[in-house]
Amino acid sequence: MPLGVFDSGIGGLTVVRALRAAFPRRDILYVGDTARVPYGNKSAETVQTYSREITDFLEKKGAERIVAACNTASALAVGVLARTKKVPLHGMIESGVASALAAGDGPVGVIGTPATIASGAYQQALAKARPGLKVVAQATPLFVPLVEEGWLEGEVTEKIARTYLEPLIREKIRVLVLACTHYPLLKGVLGKVLGPHVRLVDSSEACAASLQASEGERKEKGELKIFLTDEPGPFLGRVESFLGKGSVGSVERIHLPYG
Amino acid sequence: MPLGVFDSGIGGLTVVRALRAAFPRRDILYVGDTARVPYGNKSAETVQTYSREITDFLEKKGAERIVAACNTASALAVGVLARTKKVPLHGMIESGVASALAAGDGPVGVIGTPATIASGAYQQALAKARPGLKVVAQATPLFVPLVEEGWLEGEVTEKIARTYLEPLIREKIRVLVLACTHYPLLKGVLGKVLGPHVRLVDSSEACAASLQASEGERKEKGELKIFLTDEPGPFLGRVESFLGKGSVGSVERIHLPYG
Repeated sequence: MPLGVFDSGIGGLTVVRALRAAFPRRDILYVGDTARVPYGNKSAETVQTYSREITDFLEKKGAERIVAACNTASALAVGVLARTKKVPLHGMIESGVASALAAGDGPVGVIGTPATIASGAYQQALAKARPGLKVVAQATPLFVPLVEEGWLEGEVTEKIARTYLEPLIREKIRVLVLACTHYPLLKGVLGKVLGPHVRLVDSSEACAASLQASEGERKEKGELKIFLTDEPGPFLGRVESFLGKGSVGSVERIHLPYG
Repeated sequence: MPLGVFDSGIGGLTVVRALRAAFPRRDILYVGDTARVPYGNKSAETVQTYSREITDFLEKKGAERIVAACNTASALAVGVLARTKKVPLHGMIESGVASALAAGDGPVGVIGTPATIASGAYQQALAKARPGLKVVAQATPLFVPLVEEGWLEGEVTEKIARTYLEPLIREKIRVLVLACTHYPLLKGVLGKVLGPHVRLVDSSEACAASLQASEGERKEKGELKIFLTDEPGPFLGRVESFLGKGSVGSVERIHLPYG
């Protein structure tokens, strides 16, 4: 029984990468909604509709468990969908919060898309898990375009990071949750701007690690199938930057809604 | 009979603004595909599908003429759609090219989304209209996010503009076509980087001016109806930055495909 994984685009392949390291023999079905990417500036209702279409598709393909490898879908849609779905549905927020709390005691910063931050999902989950914790949340909408443009370092990227992180530095955060699949590619710049005393929590790794704990099986021979809602061509060149080098498996174009 | 106008998002309201100045009494129906924005990094087939759904909707609403107020849709979809549509369909490329040629004699630069530039639509139209003309085209994918973030000036925006425009400056362009509805909001920075000897051609104004020439009627009492495919809320605050101050008219949420 394959594991289903989805994201607004190809950024969720960072979660697939971590999952494949944790479960090398498990089959994975991945859907990237590249025809409608991004989700981070869209409404909760629209993100819920898109997420429902994709999870329906993955269920029909036999996924026995589905991971929303997209912080925006996790923040806006997973809670609502989990109420009506039979297949277990995992978001990225619980594991991200657990990792953040394990990483240190001081104030926690959270950066993500405008929709993720505006939802308050991380802020509420952190406050619930550790009452009284100081949390500073900041939308960083230019980070995804910078990563997609490949500007992972340099003067411009550093200056943008300094501008966004200035309020978090002022509040003396000790932990920063990277609440978007693209942000781990900016770890170098973020570490430089924040300094070595701030721990960076990669929500993709945290998500994969939490699933490892709940599954534990490593028997299957793993295959990766990637489904994209737009023509794969322009995205293929960037798949390796998220997934790492190695066999991509098959890439297929699909049209949603499937059902 | 209203004029139909559409764009991937709300940037096309810069064209509406110019159209309302030219035809103050004409009714305008505007569709912004905010649930699937942006188009600039999507495939031709997907942009054609979305554009067909929207033009179908506008036709059913009674539009007697439709303007693709989106350079990406103009470059990738208008030619294909015009072959099957009865309603007259206008893109932004012909008028942008005519304005560029009227603006000067030297080499012409074109900046736009990755999809617009990769299509070669502007480059081919310029070469056809003036054989031998030197054309330098450059995709500038960070400009739309910068405008949407409201960073219309300052060190970061200027540095990004310098990086993108460096190859155009090296080729000594005398005219720059702003082949995306968002870019006129960066005119200040672009002018600063390029200097006063480079003429900036606003494709929105060029498009509206060319329609004025072909219509000439100024009798109707104009009403503006805005239809958005995502919840209007988050976009309303930015409507004025594209449309200018004044009555927005009605804003309605729609679900595509309509037909």
